[in-house]
Amino acid sequence: MAKTNIVDWTTITNFVVDAFKGYGIPEEDAKICADVLLESDKRGIESHGCNRFKPIYLDRIKAGIQNPVTNYEIVKETETTAVVDGHDGMGQVIGYKSMQLAIDKAKKYGMGMVVVRNSCHYGIAGYYTTMAAKQGCIGLTGTNARPTVAPTFGVEGMFGTNPLTLGVPTDEAFDFNFDAATSITQNGKLEYYERIGENLHAGTVVGADGKAIEGDAGAALKAIGSGNAALTTLGGIGEDLGGYKGYGFAMFVEFLSAVLQDGSYGKALIGKGENGEKRPFHLGHFFIAIDTDHFMGEDVCRKKAGDIIREVRSAKKAPGAERIYTAGEKEYEIRLARKDGVPINESVQKEFIAVRDELGLTQYKFPFED
Amino acid sequence: MAKTNIVDWTTITNFVVDAFKGYGIPEEDAKICADVLLESDKRGIESHGCNRFKPIYLDRIKAGIQNPVTNYEIVKETETTAVVDGHDGMGQVIGYKSMQLAIDKAKKYGMGMVVVRNSCHYGIAGYYTTMAAKQGCIGLTGTNARPTVAPTFGVEGMFGTNPLTLGVPTDEAFDFNFDAATSITQNGKLEYYERIGENLHAGTVVGADGKAIEGDAGAALKAIGSGNAALTTLGGIGEDLGGYKGYGFAMFVEFLSAVLQDGSYGKALIGKGENGEKRPFHLGHFFIAIDTDHFMGEDVCRKKAGDIIREVRSAKKAPGAERIYTAGEKEYEIRLARKDGVPINESVQKEFIAVRDELGLTQYKFPFED
Repeated sequence: MAKTNIVDWTTITNFVVDAFKGYGIPEEDAKICADVLLESDKRGIESHGCNRFKPIYLDRIKAGIQNPVTNYEIVKETETTAVVDGHDGMGQVIGYKSMQLAIDKAKKYGMGMVVVRNSCHYGIAGYYTTMAAKQGCIGLTGTNARPTVAPTFGVEGMFGTNPLTLGVPTDEAFDFNFDAATSITQNGKLEYYERIGENLHAGTVVGADGKAIEGDAGAALKAIGSGNAALTTLGGIGEDLGGYKGYGFAMFVEFLSAVLQDGSYGKALIGKGENGEKRPFHLGHFFIAIDTDHFMGEDVCRKKAGDIIREVRSAKKAPGAERIYTAGEKEYEIRLARKDGVPINESVQKEFIAVRDELGLTQYKFPFED
Repeated sequence: MAKTNIVDWTTITNFVVDAFKGYGIPEEDAKICADVLLESDKRGIESHGCNRFKPIYLDRIKAGIQNPVTNYEIVKETETTAVVDGHDGMGQVIGYKSMQLAIDKAKKYGMGMVVVRNSCHYGIAGYYTTMAAKQGCIGLTGTNARPTVAPTFGVEGMFGTNPLTLGVPTDEAFDFNFDAATSITQNGKLEYYERIGENLHAGTVVGADGKAIEGDAGAALKAIGSGNAALTTLGGIGEDLGGYKGYGFAMFVEFLSAVLQDGSYGKALIGKGENGEKRPFHLGHFFIAIDTDHFMGEDVCRKKAGDIIREVRSAKKAPGAERIYTAGEKEYEIRLARKDGVPINESVQKEFIAVRDELGLTQYKFPFED
């Protein structure tokens, strides 16, 4: 077999499932966790896929701040609503079950909303909105996160990158799926800029002096980590370009991730105790499903959403711009391009090998190995 | 009586109600229209208050593109959902009834969502989310609008300023209420800049060359009107500062304003026929209510939302910044400052006098008159 950094989907899926199982996650849950993780790589969202397999999931289980066995407790339930306590279990399992519960409620009553407290990182938010759209529902989800983003006129991280994520069924080969942080950028992207030597985009990070930090992304990351800088909300520093709007959207996600479920928020989500020791993040999420058949029908929705998308794509383009994309389109094209497998970078290759050896999963031999 | 441009609330409310009645709006509906209109002035949102009384509402009734008698037809209804056809009636009446219907459904089933087609301008979106928050619900509304905003890498208005508006009950004297366009700026603000001689903020308007139009706001407005420029989405031109995120939020509003109700969208909302003749706008809106008592309860929600708000306000501030505001706070302070009445500018003074004289409402004598 020729040496390559491309690992086929069957191999990588089986390996990730077995590794999750090796860390104590029950098989059915491990399959969900693997599907959420690898869906990110299928869409080309490197930051949330295999790059996070070991550091964000396995290492946290090992550190004892995340439970491999998920105790999914429904604290309260009505026709359309549910409050869930995730008891620091696997965020992907909690997310999957919660969105499916919201969809089931929507299919019966028109709408469903499930809110979660005490969860862990749930992967790409867009996984859950895609679940909804595939089942003929408009889906909406969001999560709070470690505080790294400053409010307008603030210079200190008070809330997370708080994605607000939306899925809408269309009549195309892929549904509309908009999955983005409410901050301009996020730590994962800064790490990427640092790796490729790209400078910060001015206005994406604010320093203690209230001004944009420019230049080296690595230095900015350190400053954010030590509380001497913060990410900015969509719209940037101050009010001139609408920074208070991104701040408003971030707060919306912060509210829906905490106020209905009596959950944690803001500085409580730092993942560290008073003495700097690691502790669970206690994240909050929300999941909303809206059933199109309770309105004018799934066919009408899909057709009209497709018509809207196609009209927008037909807009007059800026000189040099060849295409106007709609949300989910680039990800769909990457999925097609990666049909045979996913490229694994060297750093993740080493992690895969170490995990395999640690767990004695000797049945796996990766194509990138000698 | 001393001459002043401040008109007390009783006088202005009675006058606006009587004028709306004079244009054929039934009394109960006229009261709703007046309340929505003047709530905008109470909050200091000049662009959507008395400044729009004549041009956006009365003149459109006179032009025959908006019906003073609102035929509020519920086309389809389920436990939690309803589809409404507004038949080109008064947007404020349609909005008020729709949000109350959504709230009533939420009180019974946990959630409610009402979508509307064939409506007219409904005033400040934040009026409806405030209704929800006052009644212990999280409220969400949005509306599509005349196409003036370009998608990322486009230079042509394909959708409207599409506000995405959120209300959350708190334990403070006012609820959280975030009411903002998903574009950085909007025509009303550009008109204001033109009046006060302030230049455009670079990046808020894109020209046919794909670059930011700078300088004179009046020239930019003309270019937008003639299709040679467009407003930009929150995040600005291109992708560097997240313009595609504002584009995603705008599309979300466009979808919810059309796909569930089989309504109009995009270029169909131009308000003109093939030969340039005025015609109804056929706007779409959506209204969502989420009842806090179907989750952990209204008290828990109000307390936690207040705690979140207060923590965010306590953030370390940029040098020179005295305060960090949360959404709804500035509007609340303006409301207190305007408890005795609202200042009416000269242009609106003339409109008020003309409308009074036209309708023979001789009982009204304004304090700004000689």
